[in-house]
Amino acid sequence: MTALASLAEVVGPSACLTAADDVAPYAVDWRGAYKGTPSGVVKPNSTEQVAEVVRRAATAGLAIVPAGGRTGLCGGAVPPANGPASIVLSLERMNRIRNVDPRDFSIVAEAGCVVQNVQQAAAEAGRLFPIQWGAQGTAQIGGMLSTNAGGIRTLRWGNARELVLGLEVVLPDGRVLDDLRRVRKDNSGYALRHLFIGGEGTLGIITAAALRLQPALKRVETAFVAVPSPDAALSLFGRAMESGAELIAFELCARYCMETAAKHGVGLRMPLPLESPWYVMMEIAAAHPSVPLREMLEEMLGQAIEAGEATDASIADSEAQRLNIWKIREDYPECARREGFAINTDTAVPVSAVPQFLERAIAEVSKRWPQGRISAIGHLGDGNIHFGLHVPPGWDDDRPKWVAATEGFESLVNEIAVSLGGSFSAEHGIGQSKRHAMAAHKNPVAMDVMRTIKDALDPDGRMNPGKVLP
Amino acid sequence: MTALASLAEVVGPSACLTAADDVAPYAVDWRGAYKGTPSGVVKPNSTEQVAEVVRRAATAGLAIVPAGGRTGLCGGAVPPANGPASIVLSLERMNRIRNVDPRDFSIVAEAGCVVQNVQQAAAEAGRLFPIQWGAQGTAQIGGMLSTNAGGIRTLRWGNARELVLGLEVVLPDGRVLDDLRRVRKDNSGYALRHLFIGGEGTLGIITAAALRLQPALKRVETAFVAVPSPDAALSLFGRAMESGAELIAFELCARYCMETAAKHGVGLRMPLPLESPWYVMMEIAAAHPSVPLREMLEEMLGQAIEAGEATDASIADSEAQRLNIWKIREDYPECARREGFAINTDTAVPVSAVPQFLERAIAEVSKRWPQGRISAIGHLGDGNIHFGLHVPPGWDDDRPKWVAATEGFESLVNEIAVSLGGSFSAEHGIGQSKRHAMAAHKNPVAMDVMRTIKDALDPDGRMNPGKVLP
Repeated sequence: MTALASLAEVVGPSACLTAADDVAPYAVDWRGAYKGTPSGVVKPNSTEQVAEVVRRAATAGLAIVPAGGRTGLCGGAVPPANGPASIVLSLERMNRIRNVDPRDFSIVAEAGCVVQNVQQAAAEAGRLFPIQWGAQGTAQIGGMLSTNAGGIRTLRWGNARELVLGLEVVLPDGRVLDDLRRVRKDNSGYALRHLFIGGEGTLGIITAAALRLQPALKRVETAFVAVPSPDAALSLFGRAMESGAELIAFELCARYCMETAAKHGVGLRMPLPLESPWYVMMEIAAAHPSVPLREMLEEMLGQAIEAGEATDASIADSEAQRLNIWKIREDYPECARREGFAINTDTAVPVSAVPQFLERAIAEVSKRWPQGRISAIGHLGDGNIHFGLHVPPGWDDDRPKWVAATEGFESLVNEIAVSLGGSFSAEHGIGQSKRHAMAAHKNPVAMDVMRTIKDALDPDGRMNPGKVLP
Repeated sequence: MTALASLAEVVGPSACLTAADDVAPYAVDWRGAYKGTPSGVVKPNSTEQVAEVVRRAATAGLAIVPAGGRTGLCGGAVPPANGPASIVLSLERMNRIRNVDPRDFSIVAEAGCVVQNVQQAAAEAGRLFPIQWGAQGTAQIGGMLSTNAGGIRTLRWGNARELVLGLEVVLPDGRVLDDLRRVRKDNSGYALRHLFIGGEGTLGIITAAALRLQPALKRVETAFVAVPSPDAALSLFGRAMESGAELIAFELCARYCMETAAKHGVGLRMPLPLESPWYVMMEIAAAHPSVPLREMLEEMLGQAIEAGEATDASIADSEAQRLNIWKIREDYPECARREGFAINTDTAVPVSAVPQFLERAIAEVSKRWPQGRISAIGHLGDGNIHFGLHVPPGWDDDRPKWVAATEGFESLVNEIAVSLGGSFSAEHGIGQSKRHAMAAHKNPVAMDVMRTIKDALDPDGRMNPGKVLP
């Protein structure tokens, strides 16, 4: 019996794909940047099946590439081009919500649940699953946790990591680490779950998670604000935090990004004329009906304009206006793609260092690549800015030329972030695309400890090879 | 040169204690339950000194027991009675606050900083360092992180773990893992810090931490509420969460505990007559001046009384009254000690399972030890109840008799918690006192992964031997 036939025995023939046409979609990432050659795609529908697949793959000497919604930006869910013989293990059939407990403010979901479905199940129970980002309609819980996804609300409720109460993981040797407990305090030994969260499937396969829920947000107020500079935006951020309003999102966007959204967006309306160099999108929330949310926001923005931290502001007057503001933000990446090819980064620095980071990055990049168009958009409240460089108009037909021309851009920007005490990988993870950045920028002692842990838990290097560690 | 003389060379003779009288205080925990025989006490005052001490201790074959404020309840900071030759490495001289950045909402503190000093430094910058528990005037940052301390505000801001942005750690081989970055998002490889947080010094020594700060709380409202049952308390908790008020503490206390506090407390005043079987202490907060906090609390409690979730309530009318309520809670452990010897536990269950946990524990314990007096007090909002059994009046002179009579109490209560998907060690850690509970209740796969990690990072077992892992 071939190795794949043995795996088909576990999951059933219809859940074990080997025909080239069936395997092809799993062999490439959605941007088309990474392409591998898996021997097959296996779709277990239970934790026991995952465990048995892992054991049989080990016997057959096959590496395992776990995959979820495959919306990642770093090629983490695709086998590397010249990697060892491997299968893609897709969690998509493990899509049950095992438990929703409103009194416990928790939900237990399998790895293959689409993030939006978990949000909906929580909402139906009168609760909020607070993580939110553009790909939530496709991304799955397993991928969200394996990459410790961020998004626009981490400012208030944390990254994916902070939402986890317990995990169920299949280890590289096929044993099940059943730590799927809904416990908010547990100091019984090492916090193993945090190795698998953000571990990108290189230490084990997350099969289910117990997740925190919040009380439903009853009201939000949202503003689109023109600010003269990143430093002014930082002051506005401090003002909002100090005001005592519950700030749940604070995004900073360069005018170029808003122009790009206005140019390519479908059905988007800019709330203000694009006459300011920078814009902020901010949202405050309240669950209690007696909190005068609108007045709080108006007062705060009035004071900010008086203090010179803002020059103009538009507060959403309806849910449609509010959704329009967030649609600008969420559609921006797609609009940017329509504008043309870009080299991009995913940096984080201390929140107070964002203005300095942007000043240095803009100065050095515009000096070295004056023909490029700088994009800068991101989560100021987390210090996480995506700083990119768009191909000059007309060059888009020759991407390799732009790639060659911008050699050094990514490492320059990452270097500036790291020199300010920051990170070259804030929320997207490492996958295949940032392994060279790990080699260049990651603390060598940290890297060595990571390798020690990888070797101890996955001595044969069978789990998602060619990812994370260079 | 002796090993201790070599260490004195590193830290200076006055910071290397070897005389029996000088060493004695470090050889025993504050409860007097654990006593070891360290060869000496070494007090480095810099990260470099810690690293050099670790290297020289390794050469000399000495184990290292890291120590901070030594307020732990589990004997974690004291060498075990029959352990290997060891030194106590006290971080007390590493007590500098390296940086406070209000715009970044962060503070960088060395391990030896007393927790209260960090709270004060944050307050002086207009910020809140939110962790709070009884021992904060003595406990140090390193111990707080090594044990992932909890307290009464984890409900809102998490355990110590959730407050960490970055860590500096000296590894068992003396290398420094410098990850002291103030970055809120960082997905560059495995989240190593979480191994050391809650690792109780068995994988390395935390020397400094970058910690999150919050906007200062401008106002709080606090209530002492009589509730008919734990289930009613749970409903009140849900009501408070759903109301949209910012709930920052929610404690549940059995009447017996309040009677004990009333009997032994100094200067405590009970806000209500002790006629109810259970009491809740709750606090809501607001940083924004326009939030009608008092009205929110009054309305919520009025509705709760109408719904039968509460029978009476006293809202603090002044800061003195508010402090009195929290003093009842914080002084309770000392009052309980005055009442007599007790066997205690530190369990957590899902929040919604607290009533079931208490019902089962009370039924089984009162049946098996009818002469004992049951205490139950804890953080209902986290599912973390300290369930204990006080010696009967008159028996206190014969502690060994009560210890013998209550054999099986701890494992019975822990077993009930674990069977409800809970933990036998919620916030105090394992140290020496709960290693038998680890052996009895911890998932064996989790234990095996912990041992693999311990062996990989500390192959000679030099870091805090005899702790955490059985």
